[in-house]
Amino acid sequence: MDVITVDRRTYQRSASGITVLAHLLGLTALVLMLIWLLHYREGLDLDSENPIRVFNVHPFLMYFGFIFFAAEAMMAYKTVAATHKVQKFVHMFFNLVSLVLGIVGIHAAFKYHDKLNLEDMTSLHSWIGMAALCLFILQWLFGFSLFLFPQASTAYTRAQALPWHINGGRALLYMAICAAETGLMQKSTFLQLKDGRESHLVNILAVVILLFGITVDISVALARYV
Amino acid sequence: MDVITVDRRTYQRSASGITVLAHLLGLTALVLMLIWLLHYREGLDLDSENPIRVFNVHPFLMYFGFIFFAAEAMMAYKTVAATHKVQKFVHMFFNLVSLVLGIVGIHAAFKYHDKLNLEDMTSLHSWIGMAALCLFILQWLFGFSLFLFPQASTAYTRAQALPWHINGGRALLYMAICAAETGLMQKSTFLQLKDGRESHLVNILAVVILLFGITVDISVALARYV
Repeated sequence: MDVITVDRRTYQRSASGITVLAHLLGLTALVLMLIWLLHYREGLDLDSENPIRVFNVHPFLMYFGFIFFAAEAMMAYKTVAATHKVQKFVHMFFNLVSLVLGIVGIHAAFKYHDKLNLEDMTSLHSWIGMAALCLFILQWLFGFSLFLFPQASTAYTRAQALPWHINGGRALLYMAICAAETGLMQKSTFLQLKDGRESHLVNILAVVILLFGITVDISVALARYV
Repeated sequence: MDVITVDRRTYQRSASGITVLAHLLGLTALVLMLIWLLHYREGLDLDSENPIRVFNVHPFLMYFGFIFFAAEAMMAYKTVAATHKVQKFVHMFFNLVSLVLGIVGIHAAFKYHDKLNLEDMTSLHSWIGMAALCLFILQWLFGFSLFLFPQASTAYTRAQALPWHINGGRALLYMAICAAETGLMQKSTFLQLKDGRESHLVNILAVVILLFGITVDISVALARYV
């Protein structure tokens, strides 16, 4: 079989288009999330007496904190026009923001459960979400110690670890997307929204979050394709 | 920055281990699915008078038909010890089996809805699942015409299309996994399983399906890593 090589720039141009699409989908999901929570669901406030407003902090931060910032961190090597060192710092810092906001977001769900005396960690959504956050913390610590302090490891070790870091990151992105999809599915079924306007809004929000995840993945993968 | 190359065989060995793990997780999910449907849910039969037995064909075929065979098709280039031509044929054929069983599986859901006079295509699960199946059919037709009839296109066209085929396939795998997760989440919330044995079984089944998807993805990605 002959080996045909395609000019790498072909993919890099396509990848740039998909990156722009990913940013747009990410911001669209933010707008849809805010319309849902502010217009249909009484708004959001972590310190409210109203349990619903406390709960609403959870979907907002899990998307706009955890998923959005981690996804932007993945694309930082493409979108930040700076030296590799600065890109790496932005990658680490956005993942840190994602991690912290993710922890606050999970706190909101537990606080809501406490207020209503509901059990924690029984649903599939909670299992996937908690696993995603815990593994994300491990991945962050692993990446931070290995790639931010190059003097502490050999270049060979880092080169060997890189594919695991990249593949692990993609797996975590899709785990987080699965957590978002199951969370919105659970809420929609629980509220018995059926076929109304709010149901359509939640479904479209979830589909946009899924497409955001897919475009982020493909944008990063195509840019690396050799 | 120095470029350090790691021996490709390092990843191929790891990828082989992960492939074995993927097969095991895939079969574990099949066993858990059968325990759930046969022990807790009255069994499965597409021609039954009992709507529950008709419905149960749906989760069974969407997992063991659609997801399992498509995932095995993705790994065929690693697991089938034969020439590239035979591997390619197995890849195409397993995807065809996946496609046909996926259509029968969706038919089971519509038949169940008809029996109970329920509306179709209102839930997030149905939207994601239907989109995954339709895009999968397009991807199959695209792959079939391009890669099974090499004389009809130039080698350059195929080389250019290959990354899209691979990335599209991975995106479809995760879409199908999202459909499975939202489906099991919906069923679990709808049945109000709460914190019982059946609820745990369904959650574990869903987690195993998610891990199956992730290991299939990483197994294929690591083996290709350059």
